Amino acid sequence: MSEPEKSENIPDASAGKEVPNGGNSAKSKEDFDLAAVYVSDAMYNRNIYFDTSPQAIRLYLLYNHWALKVLLYVFILVNLGLAIFEEPAVFPLPTWATMLLELLCVFVFTFRIVHYAKVIPRDKFWKDPKNICIIVILLLTLVDMIIYGALRAANCSIIRWSRVLRPLLLVNVTEGRQLRRAFRSIRNALPQIFNVFLLFMFSLLMFSLMALKLLGKRNLKTIEGLPYFNNYLEIVFDLYVLVTTANSPDVMMPAYNSHSMFTLFFIVYILINTYIFMSVFLAVVYNNYKKYLKEEVRQLVRAKRHKMARAFAVLQEQKEDGGQPMVTQANWNQLVRQVRPDISNGHRELLWHVCDDKNHGFIGKGAFVQLADLLNIEVITLKSRPHPLQSLFPKIYQSAPSRLLCRMVQHRAFVIAFDLIILVNAVFIGLDEENPLISNSEWVFLTLYVLEILLKLYVFEPKAFFSRYSFWNCLSTPQIISTRFDTLIVVTALIATIINSALKSLVRYTSRQILDIVFILRVLRLLRVVDGFKRFRAIINTLIRIGPAILTFGQLIIVVFYIFAMVGMELFKHKVKFYEDSNDPAKAYCGNPLLNNTAFAQLNYCKNNFNNVVSSFILLVELTVVNQWHVLSSGFATVTHVSARIFFVIFHILVVIIIVNIFVAFVLEAFFVEYSMDKNDLQTSLEKKIKELELAVAQEKLEDNLVNAMETMDNDLGTGQTSTTANLPNLMFKIASKRYRTVDALLQRMFEEDLDPEDFRETDEPEAQTGSFPNPAFGSA
Amino acid sequence: MSEPEKSENIPDASAGKEVPNGGNSAKSKEDFDLAAVYVSDAMYNRNIYFDTSPQAIRLYLLYNHWALKVLLYVFILVNLGLAIFEEPAVFPLPTWATMLLELLCVFVFTFRIVHYAKVIPRDKFWKDPKNICIIVILLLTLVDMIIYGALRAANCSIIRWSRVLRPLLLVNVTEGRQLRRAFRSIRNALPQIFNVFLLFMFSLLMFSLMALKLLGKRNLKTIEGLPYFNNYLEIVFDLYVLVTTANSPDVMMPAYNSHSMFTLFFIVYILINTYIFMSVFLAVVYNNYKKYLKEEVRQLVRAKRHKMARAFAVLQEQKEDGGQPMVTQANWNQLVRQVRPDISNGHRELLWHVCDDKNHGFIGKGAFVQLADLLNIEVITLKSRPHPLQSLFPKIYQSAPSRLLCRMVQHRAFVIAFDLIILVNAVFIGLDEENPLISNSEWVFLTLYVLEILLKLYVFEPKAFFSRYSFWNCLSTPQIISTRFDTLIVVTALIATIINSALKSLVRYTSRQILDIVFILRVLRLLRVVDGFKRFRAIINTLIRIGPAILTFGQLIIVVFYIFAMVGMELFKHKVKFYEDSNDPAKAYCGNPLLNNTAFAQLNYCKNNFNNVVSSFILLVELTVVNQWHVLSSGFATVTHVSARIFFVIFHILVVIIIVNIFVAFVLEAFFVEYSMDKNDLQTSLEKKIKELELAVAQEKLEDNLVNAMETMDNDLGTGQTSTTANLPNLMFKIASKRYRTVDALLQRMFEEDLDPEDFRETDEPEAQTGSFPNPAFGSA
Repeated sequence: MSEPEKSENIPDASAGKEVPNGGNSAKSKEDFDLAAVYVSDAMYNRNIYFDTSPQAIRLYLLYNHWALKVLLYVFILVNLGLAIFEEPAVFPLPTWATMLLELLCVFVFTFRIVHYAKVIPRDKFWKDPKNICIIVILLLTLVDMIIYGALRAANCSIIRWSRVLRPLLLVNVTEGRQLRRAFRSIRNALPQIFNVFLLFMFSLLMFSLMALKLLGKRNLKTIEGLPYFNNYLEIVFDLYVLVTTANSPDVMMPAYNSHSMFTLFFIVYILINTYIFMSVFLAVVYNNYKKYLKEEVRQLVRAKRHKMARAFAVLQEQKEDGGQPMVTQANWNQLVRQVRPDISNGHRELLWHVCDDKNHGFIGKGAFVQLADLLNIEVITLKSRPHPLQSLFPKIYQSAPSRLLCRMVQHRAFVIAFDLIILVNAVFIGLDEENPLISNSEWVFLTLYVLEILLKLYVFEPKAFFSRYSFWNCLSTPQIISTRFDTLIVVTALIATIINSALKSLVRYTSRQILDIVFILRVLRLLRVVDGFKRFRAIINTLIRIGPAILTFGQLIIVVFYIFAMVGMELFKHKVKFYEDSNDPAKAYCGNPLLNNTAFAQLNYCKNNFNNVVSSFILLVELTVVNQWHVLSSGFATVTHVSARIFFVIFHILVVIIIVNIFVAFVLEAFFVEYSMDKNDLQTSLEKKIKELELAVAQEKLEDNLVNAMETMDNDLGTGQTSTTANLPNLMFKIASKRYRTVDALLQRMFEEDLDPEDFRETDEPEAQTGSFPNPAFGSA
Repeated sequence: MSEPEKSENIPDASAGKEVPNGGNSAKSKEDFDLAAVYVSDAMYNRNIYFDTSPQAIRLYLLYNHWALKVLLYVFILVNLGLAIFEEPAVFPLPTWATMLLELLCVFVFTFRIVHYAKVIPRDKFWKDPKNICIIVILLLTLVDMIIYGALRAANCSIIRWSRVLRPLLLVNVTEGRQLRRAFRSIRNALPQIFNVFLLFMFSLLMFSLMALKLLGKRNLKTIEGLPYFNNYLEIVFDLYVLVTTANSPDVMMPAYNSHSMFTLFFIVYILINTYIFMSVFLAVVYNNYKKYLKEEVRQLVRAKRHKMARAFAVLQEQKEDGGQPMVTQANWNQLVRQVRPDISNGHRELLWHVCDDKNHGFIGKGAFVQLADLLNIEVITLKSRPHPLQSLFPKIYQSAPSRLLCRMVQHRAFVIAFDLIILVNAVFIGLDEENPLISNSEWVFLTLYVLEILLKLYVFEPKAFFSRYSFWNCLSTPQIISTRFDTLIVVTALIATIINSALKSLVRYTSRQILDIVFILRVLRLLRVVDGFKRFRAIINTLIRIGPAILTFGQLIIVVFYIFAMVGMELFKHKVKFYEDSNDPAKAYCGNPLLNNTAFAQLNYCKNNFNNVVSSFILLVELTVVNQWHVLSSGFATVTHVSARIFFVIFHILVVIIIVNIFVAFVLEAFFVEYSMDKNDLQTSLEKKIKELELAVAQEKLEDNLVNAMETMDNDLGTGQTSTTANLPNLMFKIASKRYRTVDALLQRMFEEDLDPEDFRETDEPEAQTGSFPNPAFGSA
């Protein structure tokens, strides 16, 4: 890679004090701490060069503590959210209040960076551009605050320019790895995109010249009665807009009305510039994105192996017969317990069996190194636990009617029946609720849903229903989510309907807002119906899988939007006004006489303005969707200067041509991977081991529809219908197939086939390597 | 593959009379005819099962004659073009005239299909769906014409419904292979697309329900003052349009004006449906397209090998010592001469050397089979020929000033200088030509261009400049094209300017049309400047390379557009009228009072109508570009019935979601291939041979910029500056790298890496194979 990346070295084992010299000395707590840190760094692909002294490790563990991270992100959000309260504000706060809040944020960020500086060696700290970046941002913010405060006190008008820098903190904090990667991937694609862009611009300029020659002297008029295509720069802008198709038939109508042959010019233009060039942009972005990401993933994998080798070096022991160094099961167990205290003993034992395939009681480096990946494979542990009702009232629960009920609820028809009820409910929701029959049917449906939940609670083990995974854990299957989601919705709907009815009898008309939300939630129940079809599940699974990556893109979009919103607010604030009162005559021209009779005012776009951060963001979303962006940009150009269009064109190039294309490329790639990939080797070996140990859950049932199977499972194991399942072990495992704990794991999977085998090969001599791996950094501020 | 494809067998060699039984008998003319037919079928991937009797082969050769093919396409064009003259017509012709023309077309098509029936065995003929399809179309057309004629005579109004069938002829003629493949690829992707579409529709319906609940009862008004989002079907349509972004901010403005929070609904909707679902559509289309095409190409390659093996079987001779059968150089030479009479002796010799690597004087089957691919590699033959002026006036041409002039013209600066002149000219074109200085500068530039051409003619061998390739041969490098193009433009501009000046002195104002074209052509000269940059050449080369494939998509689009235009004309003709006279009051509502105050009329879209085939096509292009399609469809729904929107939605799904995505997929794939591929093995071995024989043109010079090199070359070889080049052979070769004679060759190249090696492996026992390969057919009418 060509970028000046900050490389950080894992501390040389020889520099650490705890390198065992073949001795079989018992490992100290510090050793386990260090090894656990290495393993969890490898698991989460953290590339931080930390001191290996015990107190530095304790500081480092603190640094990685989730609470501190959450705190950091909360303060980043607060810092970004200040824009809501600052002039131009959605909810104005006095200047001293926002300044105080910002000072607090700056303080927290400073504390965090000082903490980071304590964790890693000083020279490494100062070599990392992202640290410098944060420090510079914090200093600039302070300087700007002082200037602003002073000038404000002197009643001068001044721009808070440092607000543009705020989102860069999101990029440069240690945890913003994904985001930095996205930015790097964009930066690397830029030269190629630029080449295509130049060619595209050439084509645009040439077509504009042709248009000027062809149409300029014909005295044609646009629909507004203005001269048509007689100014070169206007033509360039119009044709650029045509590339986005935003002014599609309108721009050619005057020419078309004059003679049909002129449409040929526009058709050729659209074919070349809109279809071919835009596809080429996608191709270039896609190709570069893929190429670069592959390289990144390769380095991640190398770094991961390297860290695992370090952990091994810490825990290794020399066998008496002088063979290869190895790690004993006891040490391994303690390490895993420390790294992931949440996994069950059975699960840990299973993992050990995968590593120690031949039951030696110890493992070598090769088997040890794959621990990080093993821990990242989500294994569902199914415990056979009797239903609490069975323990309490075994007689009743085992009675014939109870068993019949259980069998009924477990039956496919039960699910189908409730799917149908949901569908009917959806139709009823669509109908007019003023009709008393319909509004009363509401109660019938709610009763049915409550009945469904109660029945399921009766039949299935409640813990499996609620507690195993956290509610919103996106690693659960969509079915589990939707089942729980169902429950939540039903309960919410129940409460809301009761409150609503209670209030209705008291007041004449209640707040619609709460009810709206409940209505929407109820409609979402339909998701479960769709998910029941096998043909749709692959698509839905892929969509769920790319969810976390979409969050990265969301951050990227927020960073870019925030910067544009800040600049846009300084440039265009209060130029266009929105009047709530529809009788105000100024409403017709958005409070700015310059907009009289423009398309902007006629289309009633007054609320699309830069008067506060929320409306700025909404406007930027509209610009991203592209349509009518020329009307919006022309509107703002009218109230300021024609060069204001440059702001909008730059936004279009950056967001629509580059970022949206990268997003499309990511979705494409994720789907291609979905279409082409199987489980990877490690998953296969884990699965083989599960089967070998006869701990496998009946495969064919679980393959695709986990929730159905789990429900059946839970029943088989839990309701005491033990005729066929008595000889099953009381602990079963199932790989939550094809899902990934982290975005990195998904990426690794995506590019696994293209990686060099040697990236995966165990390095025999970690010390012999350069020992360096890049710590992604975002160098440009 | 799952589709019921028509398989055709290459006639079994055992069935033919001319299979040699190891005899060394001299090959008859019939043998060579048969072998040549096999080879050229392999070269052009024709999969026609023809009789092998000598007169059937003669008929077959006639059937493949270019003149007959051109004639066929001319009549297909005439048949399609009839729509221009038929009611509703652009240029009305009497009914009897169009009927007579159509009858003539039907006659020609019948003749062609009868000819085809003579060439192939009867049972094969009737098994091929595309023949049945043609016959059914022709019969239906006749029936329709008779009914129409009769009812027309009886003055009844009647629909010419068989016009919808016309474009299907384009698909079903033997030559429409590419087009059939495109249709098959679409058909195969349909089930998967349908799944995603169902999911998308579910999402659309669900969001519509939410929108109804959320916004329906708020008494909001659209900008036209109509109730907003209170009718479920209207919401579905509006949100469907939002997916295409055509009504992007407008549809949410009433909700946004009421409360900012409602935009959240629209943003989530756009994210899921516009961005994610549309990307998923692209992914599905792309994936299926690629998968299917790969399978097709695999079969093409197999069929090609098989045909070559047949040709070998015809020409093979047994050596005395009982070794493998082989083909002698003499027979091979005669075969190649017969297949491609246009290639030079030197080139043929080169190919032989590639095949007969060890100089045996004969080749086995393995070497023979690759002939078809070898002949498809474009080799540029550079003959060292002295400049005619050198032969005529050697003294003057070799004199010092002449040599200086030659060296000057050959210099890079000469090219750069003229590039600059073109740029300056472009600026002048952009300036106001009313200015006398500017309009006179025209003459200066023309003089300079003429001077450039004369100088080049003086320095370079004229034949290299003009005659080697046909003018528009797209296999030439872009540079050669642009150089020749330059010449053409300059000559045209010269003539046009002279005519214009002559006329100007006679009449006050001349016809602008001719001048416009010349102006446009002059602007195109700038292409040469861009092409001079290396960084752009890869992109331009790829764009040129996908040109032929775009033609296939063009045919596809024409077929689909034609059908929609025919249906649209029957549904909507004369509902909307365009008034040339701007004073007509009916112009404000396009001649249809129903359109009063609609967006359609207000935006002056009156000329976007289905009143004749040309405006229908233009309207369909506008619908393909998508923007404002809701205004257009609502306009036509207003003048007919709300269900007319179905027509437009179907068009959108079919053209924008499927065909445009396939087009994008093709462009993407072509670029990925460009980024990743090198020359294939055969090209490499050919190039190695060229180098081995010391016939190579200096590689480094030619690598990327062929025209510069050729110019230098031609000079080196032709101007008699023989100091360094005297010992060069007088014949040189260069592979026109990475370009392909046929679309099939490009496709083969695109999927070469993914093909099984065994598809390329020489089959030792062609008779042992099933011997069948599919003849692409378009089964559905």
